[in-house]
Amino acid sequence: MKTELCALLGIEYPIIQGGMAWVANASLASAVSAAGGLGIIAAGNAPADYVRGEICKVREMTDRPFGVNIMLLSPFAGEIIDLTIEEKVPVVTTGAGMVPAKVMKRWLDAGVKVIPVVPSVAIARMMERNGACAVIAEGGESGGHIGELNTMPLVPQVVDAVKIPVIAAGGIADGRGLAASLMLGAVGVQMGTRFLVAHECTIHRNYKDRVLRAKDIDTVTTGKSLGHPARALRNPFTRAFAENEANPDMTLEEKEAFGAGALRKAVIDGDEKNGSFMAGECAGMVNREQSCAEILAEVTAQAEEVLKGAAKWVR
Amino acid sequence: MKTELCALLGIEYPIIQGGMAWVANASLASAVSAAGGLGIIAAGNAPADYVRGEICKVREMTDRPFGVNIMLLSPFAGEIIDLTIEEKVPVVTTGAGMVPAKVMKRWLDAGVKVIPVVPSVAIARMMERNGACAVIAEGGESGGHIGELNTMPLVPQVVDAVKIPVIAAGGIADGRGLAASLMLGAVGVQMGTRFLVAHECTIHRNYKDRVLRAKDIDTVTTGKSLGHPARALRNPFTRAFAENEANPDMTLEEKEAFGAGALRKAVIDGDEKNGSFMAGECAGMVNREQSCAEILAEVTAQAEEVLKGAAKWVR
Repeated sequence: MKTELCALLGIEYPIIQGGMAWVANASLASAVSAAGGLGIIAAGNAPADYVRGEICKVREMTDRPFGVNIMLLSPFAGEIIDLTIEEKVPVVTTGAGMVPAKVMKRWLDAGVKVIPVVPSVAIARMMERNGACAVIAEGGESGGHIGELNTMPLVPQVVDAVKIPVIAAGGIADGRGLAASLMLGAVGVQMGTRFLVAHECTIHRNYKDRVLRAKDIDTVTTGKSLGHPARALRNPFTRAFAENEANPDMTLEEKEAFGAGALRKAVIDGDEKNGSFMAGECAGMVNREQSCAEILAEVTAQAEEVLKGAAKWVR
Repeated sequence: MKTELCALLGIEYPIIQGGMAWVANASLASAVSAAGGLGIIAAGNAPADYVRGEICKVREMTDRPFGVNIMLLSPFAGEIIDLTIEEKVPVVTTGAGMVPAKVMKRWLDAGVKVIPVVPSVAIARMMERNGACAVIAEGGESGGHIGELNTMPLVPQVVDAVKIPVIAAGGIADGRGLAASLMLGAVGVQMGTRFLVAHECTIHRNYKDRVLRAKDIDTVTTGKSLGHPARALRNPFTRAFAENEANPDMTLEEKEAFGAGALRKAVIDGDEKNGSFMAGECAGMVNREQSCAEILAEVTAQAEEVLKGAAKWVR
């Protein structure tokens, strides 16, 4: 199936793989891109040298378009912006902040397509004004760091507010979610949680098992009181984090320090006690390990099937 | 447009009007039912005599099916259950709790169709086992009292878990949301916020104006720390409520007492300072006052239009 997003990015399937810090490395991104989606390398809090290495690996593995996700609050954001320009990365997605107009201009001058992840209408509009070629409207049912609005009401409101294409994210893990997103006016989707269990995803075995076993109610949001809510699978870490948040005897700094490195402990060590196993509310419907190629083919085939079924409701 | 829900309930449009306490009275419910949707009288915390009066009024105004929403935590829930059986109300929807098996049996014996509002897969399964004819899977983007999961990931997970029809609710205010819900496997939708500004809705002028002016980010959730989160438009009341929640010097009882009667103050008095103007995240896309008949016709026509448009993505 083809949508406007395929033409915009030169990809086969209207599916972007989410830029999950520590998770979205060259192995995952190249597999998604090679299979016809848009693979994304997450820069997270890593320095430019790491990201440069991942870009090289993706380019060794596929000639197809890929992207880099830049967490704008990263201490290395500046050098990674330079790197993406130097490397003429086909697509940049951005999160955790707003892209300054002058940075956007440098990307546009270098021919880099910029697709910010946005949590609201106002930020979508600002990104459009600054030159974004599309936005990802991401609902708070996503895994990891999240905004306040949710996918079903957010996407159509952003679609109504901007002229550039809108990609839906948050709570989407199969062809039904893709088809629903198209009905809301989106041109495609970004999925994260479903790719956590892809064969080419290199996270710890324990992390994959947690996602595969998850039920619908197994994620929880922590960090809201610190100003940066994040969704992860419930475990001793999220319980301790929530207790700390409610503890008036801890300083903000101590609360922040407690969470530092927790995602890495989940991804690298599979540490059930101290790790943050970030995942979206759709973890409950992610039950099978597949290759990225299988995931892309299955999601789009299911979307086509349910879209064809729409004929029965239409006079 | 017709779906399985129309046949199940004997209605023309696959749209249920949400059972909003203080808001969903005979005026609104009869208008929705007369126009071909399923109108709902909200029992809220009102005694049976009030509800009986509203049922009579609806029956005077239309012969079409309608429903009563029962808030199971209401002190009057027991007498309202008796009333719905005595009156052979066509449909009962339930919220704020689980329908006990023996209550369900009484309804089924009386020929009352029961459609619980459910926040998760486990509760949907339990309601199916007890004899519900359908469930409303409601995401936390709804207005009023809400669950934790959101519509986009909740609906397909409930659809996969039960054999009875699933109705989507939460964040749905137009035909795009209806079409998207059908793609997720639902047979129809429940909408609340859109009906707040219906001509036949008798809430205070100030309440309607707040909804009409709302932007996407204008709702907020309060009450989570008290165990019953609710979504409303931001105003002095929600700010004060949130401050109270964070105040270690107030008792739970004092915090609860502060919120008592706030919805009534919004609905009846239009009290901007002390009222709780409950509304969903889709308030930002509710911008016009229309009759219930216009709302139902417009939502379904738009749904048909976007469903027809699906043909362009399908090979």
